[in-house]
Amino acid sequence: MESAEFMRNLIIETPSSPGNFAKVALAIGSLEGDIGDIQTIKIGTVSTIRDVSIHCKDEDHLLSIVEAINHIGDGISVHAVTDDVLQAHEGGKVHMKSRMEIRSLGDLRRVYTPGVANVCERIKKDPEQANYFTGISNSVAIVTDGTAILGLGDIGPVAGMPVMEGKSVLFDQFANISGVPILLSTTDPDEIVETVKNIYQGFGGILLEDIGSPHCFEVEDRLKKELPIPVMHDDQHGTAVVTLASIISACRQAGVKLSDSVVGQIGLGAAGLAISRMLMAFGVKGVLGIDRDEAACQRLVEHGGTTAKSLEELMETCDIIVATTGVAGLIKPEMVRKGQVILALSNPNAEIEPAVALKAGAAFAADGRLVNNILGFPGIFRGALNAQAKEITYPMLIAAALAIVDSTKSGDLVPHPLDPSVHENVAAAVERAALESR
Amino acid sequence: MESAEFMRNLIIETPSSPGNFAKVALAIGSLEGDIGDIQTIKIGTVSTIRDVSIHCKDEDHLLSIVEAINHIGDGISVHAVTDDVLQAHEGGKVHMKSRMEIRSLGDLRRVYTPGVANVCERIKKDPEQANYFTGISNSVAIVTDGTAILGLGDIGPVAGMPVMEGKSVLFDQFANISGVPILLSTTDPDEIVETVKNIYQGFGGILLEDIGSPHCFEVEDRLKKELPIPVMHDDQHGTAVVTLASIISACRQAGVKLSDSVVGQIGLGAAGLAISRMLMAFGVKGVLGIDRDEAACQRLVEHGGTTAKSLEELMETCDIIVATTGVAGLIKPEMVRKGQVILALSNPNAEIEPAVALKAGAAFAADGRLVNNILGFPGIFRGALNAQAKEITYPMLIAAALAIVDSTKSGDLVPHPLDPSVHENVAAAVERAALESR
Repeated sequence: MESAEFMRNLIIETPSSPGNFAKVALAIGSLEGDIGDIQTIKIGTVSTIRDVSIHCKDEDHLLSIVEAINHIGDGISVHAVTDDVLQAHEGGKVHMKSRMEIRSLGDLRRVYTPGVANVCERIKKDPEQANYFTGISNSVAIVTDGTAILGLGDIGPVAGMPVMEGKSVLFDQFANISGVPILLSTTDPDEIVETVKNIYQGFGGILLEDIGSPHCFEVEDRLKKELPIPVMHDDQHGTAVVTLASIISACRQAGVKLSDSVVGQIGLGAAGLAISRMLMAFGVKGVLGIDRDEAACQRLVEHGGTTAKSLEELMETCDIIVATTGVAGLIKPEMVRKGQVILALSNPNAEIEPAVALKAGAAFAADGRLVNNILGFPGIFRGALNAQAKEITYPMLIAAALAIVDSTKSGDLVPHPLDPSVHENVAAAVERAALESR
Repeated sequence: MESAEFMRNLIIETPSSPGNFAKVALAIGSLEGDIGDIQTIKIGTVSTIRDVSIHCKDEDHLLSIVEAINHIGDGISVHAVTDDVLQAHEGGKVHMKSRMEIRSLGDLRRVYTPGVANVCERIKKDPEQANYFTGISNSVAIVTDGTAILGLGDIGPVAGMPVMEGKSVLFDQFANISGVPILLSTTDPDEIVETVKNIYQGFGGILLEDIGSPHCFEVEDRLKKELPIPVMHDDQHGTAVVTLASIISACRQAGVKLSDSVVGQIGLGAAGLAISRMLMAFGVKGVLGIDRDEAACQRLVEHGGTTAKSLEELMETCDIIVATTGVAGLIKPEMVRKGQVILALSNPNAEIEPAVALKAGAAFAADGRLVNNILGFPGIFRGALNAQAKEITYPMLIAAALAIVDSTKSGDLVPHPLDPSVHENVAAAVERAALESR
C-alpha cells in the first residue's frame, strides 16, 4: 500500500444481507484504496448506511473508487462523499432528548398516562403552572424561510437547516435553551406571521433567522406587536448588539468618544439598518447612512437617521465608519479621514482591509471576522426567558452589548466566543434590564 | 420533631440575595415542618427557583407552611405544590440537545460559520443530502390543537403539552426519533392544514395527536393527500393498530376465527371509526357499528361498514364486541351472547367489567387498561422513516399489529410496553411493508 495523503468519507448504503459489505471492501481494496474508521449511521431492517473513511491518492482515485462501488449493483450505493466539515453534520446536529428514562410501569404511569392527566388539569386551572411543568418557557423556535441563508442568499429553508441546527447547538451549549428549528414553506409576510402565530404557544421566544430584507422588517414588527413572547430577528438585532459592542471597544482603543460622534453606516440592509437604530438608541450624536436602494435609505430616515448624498460625503463627515455592504474594496484608501474608527464588516472580504485603512490614517480598523453574533443571541434569550419578558427592548439589547464590552479583554475587539462567562454575563445583564423596565 | 408521613414538594422562588433562603427555612422550621431534598430548578440573576421537599403532618399542616412562606414578603413566593407525579414533569420532559460539544474555534468553524456554508450548498445542489447532513429525516412533529387531550376534552394545547412531551419521551426512548411538540393556536381545519403545510419541511413525519372529532378526519385526510411525508393521527390509527393486535390475541385465546367474524363497534368517534376501518382492511367478514351521533354512523357507512339499529341488535348479531364510548356500564350482562369476545376499552371505567362479561357467558373479556398506544406509534414511525416512506398505509399498519401480536406472550393480550424488542419488531415489520408496497 502506498502512503495515502488524501482522505475522504463515503456514505454507503448496503442492503442488510450477509456479504454485502465485503463486496464494498473488495471494490475499495482492489483499487488500492485504504479503509479507515467505519461508523454506522442508520441500521434499518432492509439496509444499513455507514460512514466509511477512505485513504487514497487524490480526487481522481477517490472518484474511481466511488464509481466501482456504485457498479457493484445489488442495491449498494454511495450517497455522499464527505470531509471533516460535512462529517460534523452527519445525522443532524441536534435531537429532542428525553430528560428522564422510563424504567418501570410506575415511571410510565407518572410520565405518561394516567399520571400526566393531573399535570394537564393543573395547567388548565392555572396556565402559569406551564412554566414549571412543561419545557415551554425554556424553548425558543428558530424560524427561517430560507431567503437569506448566511451570505448564500435565497437557497430555501431545507438547505438552510444546517445553520438552524447550528443555532440550536449554540443555544443548548451556551444558554441551556431548547432551540427548535422551524422551516417555513412560505416567504409571504402575511403567511409567515399567521404561521408563527399559530404555533407560538409551544415556545417561550421566537428567534427569526436568515429571513431576507425587506420582508424581514414587516415580519418582525408584526410578530413583536402581536405575540406576548420575545421575538428577535438575529440578523438585525443580534448582529447590531455585537456590532455596538465592537464599536464601543474600538472607540475605547482609539480614544474616540462614541456619544459625541457621528457614525457613518454604509449599507442599510437588515444588519445595517439595525446597527443604525441601535446606535441611535444608544445615544450617538447622529447616524448618516447610505445604500444603493432608495427604499432602504427611506427606512433609515423613518427611524430618525439621515442619508448621505455620496459615499465620499459620508466618509468625509463621519468619525466612525461601519460597513455592511458585501462589496469588497468599496472604501478606497484616499477616502479615509485621519483618526477615523473603521469597522468594515463584510465577510469573507472587507470593504477595506484593516492594514490598508490604518496606513491611510485610521485610528482603528477591523474587519468582520471576529464580529460573530454567537456572542449575542444565546445570552439575550436566556436573560429574556429568565425574566419572563414579553418582548426584547432596546434597554435589554444595549445591556447585552455593554456586558459583551465588559467581558472583552483589553486590546481585543470582542471576547472569545467559547468563554461561558460571556454568555452568563450577557444573560444576567439582559435579565436585569428586563426586570428594571417592567 | 414528630414522625411525619405526609410529603410534598414546594416550588419556591426567592430573590437572589443572601439570607433569603434562610428565611424560608426558618418559616418551615418554626411550624415544625421538616425539609428534605432541595433541588435548584432555575438560577436566574435576580431570583432562584427551588424544589423543596417538605415532610409534615397532613394537608392542613402543609397549607399553613405555604401560607407562612408566602407571608415572608421580600419577593419570596410558593409557585406550586407538587407530588411525585408533578415532580416528574418539572422543567419539562424533553430538551433539544446538541449531539456534539464545541470545544475549540476549529469545532465552531466546522459546526457553525464558515464551515456550515459548504453543507448548505451541498443540500441546495442535491436536496436528498438533507437526509444525511440534517436531522430532518429523523424528526417527527407532534401536532395538537388541544381539543381532545386524553379523556379531558378541549383543554387547549398548552394544558395538553405534558402529553405531547410524553410522546416525545417515548419517541426518543423507544425509537430514537426526535419528536418535536407543536402547539396550534387554531382549531379551524383550514388553518391547521395551512399551518402544518407551512412548517412540514423540517420534519420526516407528522404525528397528529389529541385532535377532536370530527375535524380530526378532515385534517388528517387533507394532510395525508397534500404532504409528501407520513402523517398519522395517533388517536385513530395508532389506537386501531393496538386494538387490532388485542383483538387478534383475544380471538386466539377464545378460539374464535377473526376473519369469519362480524365485529360490533360500539362508539364511532376517532378511535371507533379507525378500528372499524382497520378491521375491514384486515378482512373481517363485516363491521356493524353504532353511535348516538348520526354523522358518525354515516362516516362508517361511507367507509364500507353497516350501522346497527340498536345496541341490542348489535350485541345479538356480533361475534366480537369492541366498545370505545366512554360510558361506563353501557353493556348490560343480559346483552352478552355466549362465546362472545368482548373488549370494553373505555378508561378508567369500562362499558362492562371483564369479570361480569365472563360470568354472563363471554368466551373472552378485557378492559382497556393494557391497550396502550405506546405499543404502536414509536415503531410505526421508526419503520416509516427508515423506509423513507411517503405515507403510512394500511399494509404498514396491519404489519405493525401483527408484529405486536408476534411479540405477545401466550396468554397475554398485549406485550409489555417497555420491552424494547416490541418496538424493534414493529419498526422492522413496518419498514418491510413500506418497501414491499413501494
